[in-house]
Amino acid sequence: MRTHELVLGWIEQQLSSGELVLGGRLPGERTMAEQLQVSRTSVREAVRILEAMGVVRAGVGSGKDAGTIVIAEPGSALGSTLRLHVATRHLPVADIVETRVLLESWAAARAQPGVPELYEAAELLDQMDAAPDVDTFLGLDARFHVALAQAAGNAVVSAMMASLRGAIENYASELTGNLPDWNATSGRLRAEHRAILAAVNANDGRKAADLVAAHIRGFYTEAGVGSASTQD
Amino acid sequence: MRTHELVLGWIEQQLSSGELVLGGRLPGERTMAEQLQVSRTSVREAVRILEAMGVVRAGVGSGKDAGTIVIAEPGSALGSTLRLHVATRHLPVADIVETRVLLESWAAARAQPGVPELYEAAELLDQMDAAPDVDTFLGLDARFHVALAQAAGNAVVSAMMASLRGAIENYASELTGNLPDWNATSGRLRAEHRAILAAVNANDGRKAADLVAAHIRGFYTEAGVGSASTQD
Repeated sequence: MRTHELVLGWIEQQLSSGELVLGGRLPGERTMAEQLQVSRTSVREAVRILEAMGVVRAGVGSGKDAGTIVIAEPGSALGSTLRLHVATRHLPVADIVETRVLLESWAAARAQPGVPELYEAAELLDQMDAAPDVDTFLGLDARFHVALAQAAGNAVVSAMMASLRGAIENYASELTGNLPDWNATSGRLRAEHRAILAAVNANDGRKAADLVAAHIRGFYTEAGVGSASTQD
Repeated sequence: MRTHELVLGWIEQQLSSGELVLGGRLPGERTMAEQLQVSRTSVREAVRILEAMGVVRAGVGSGKDAGTIVIAEPGSALGSTLRLHVATRHLPVADIVETRVLLESWAAARAQPGVPELYEAAELLDQMDAAPDVDTFLGLDARFHVALAQAAGNAVVSAMMASLRGAIENYASELTGNLPDWNATSGRLRAEHRAILAAVNANDGRKAADLVAAHIRGFYTEAGVGSASTQD
């Protein structure tokens, strides 16, 4: 085992045992290096990897705010990994799109009316009606889909769903610039979002799942990303 | 942007543009450091992160086999990330189990009879009948499930499915040691695998999906891992 992997293993063990908890601080670089008898370089490499995995945020401040904090951001970390594997052509964009359809239609079918995430989703739709530009719109759009996925109550599905969107975000946002008529597209997307949310609130899981599947496939098809199959 | 992120961005751009391809070699540490005008330490940190993401394998040899190679192993990388977030208690084990059920029943319903992955799956079942010990059995078992997922032809679903199993492998293998009667359990698992494969080969996707869902939930329930819901 290489020395930075030894550090990673030790930190994972500290997390598993509960010695180190969410929001807690990692020991300082020098302390860990001395305790594990490895170089400070190896400690720093391990911390960089944990940062990339969304497990810690490296310290930037000084005084009582200094230090490396344990966080829980698996979605963006999984998204970076998927994005790199899309870049190597190992993961086809069309497979990313279909997996999004699978996870989001599952979540839409299981979201429970009345949970707080659905109120947040409704609020986001109101903000989208007033979004001043495409980037603001797409940012709110992403948050709407995450809120809907979270309403199903499965943290792994939520994290994976967010990662899939993140993995091909660049492709989609490059292409939204080329859409023939953004006002028409955004009007359609807003109407589709409202119909999806209405079906969830009416406890019609089947309809919500079908609507969200058509919504996702339609968006990527119009943006020219992937060639979403229709076998689902 | 920190300097190691600059190196990551440059490598991602080389992959996207096709300058760097699967099986290809990264430039040497010193070359990249000079070209990007960063320290060799920053280059090494970026390479460590890419290793952890399953995008490269760092060089160990010398001569013509030396160098850092571009690979495609997203499954194990995603699994390590999920495992760490399970360790922080951010991702519940039960959610991991239910997501496995979702992805694998989707794949079982869509696997096409006659594809090579199903012949491999059948071969793995024969090997499991003759497995000399629990670890060999579980290794073959993991490969059977991956082959079945691959038969559905979605690389993202396959990678995610493999990552979920990897994320809670330690929990499951600790607990298989505590099963009341391993021979009885392995006999049941082998019979269930054959029934799943038979349903796929008979093009009965619905039945294959139901059987694989029951099989996964049953295994984790018996091993005492998670509390798989039955809402699916």
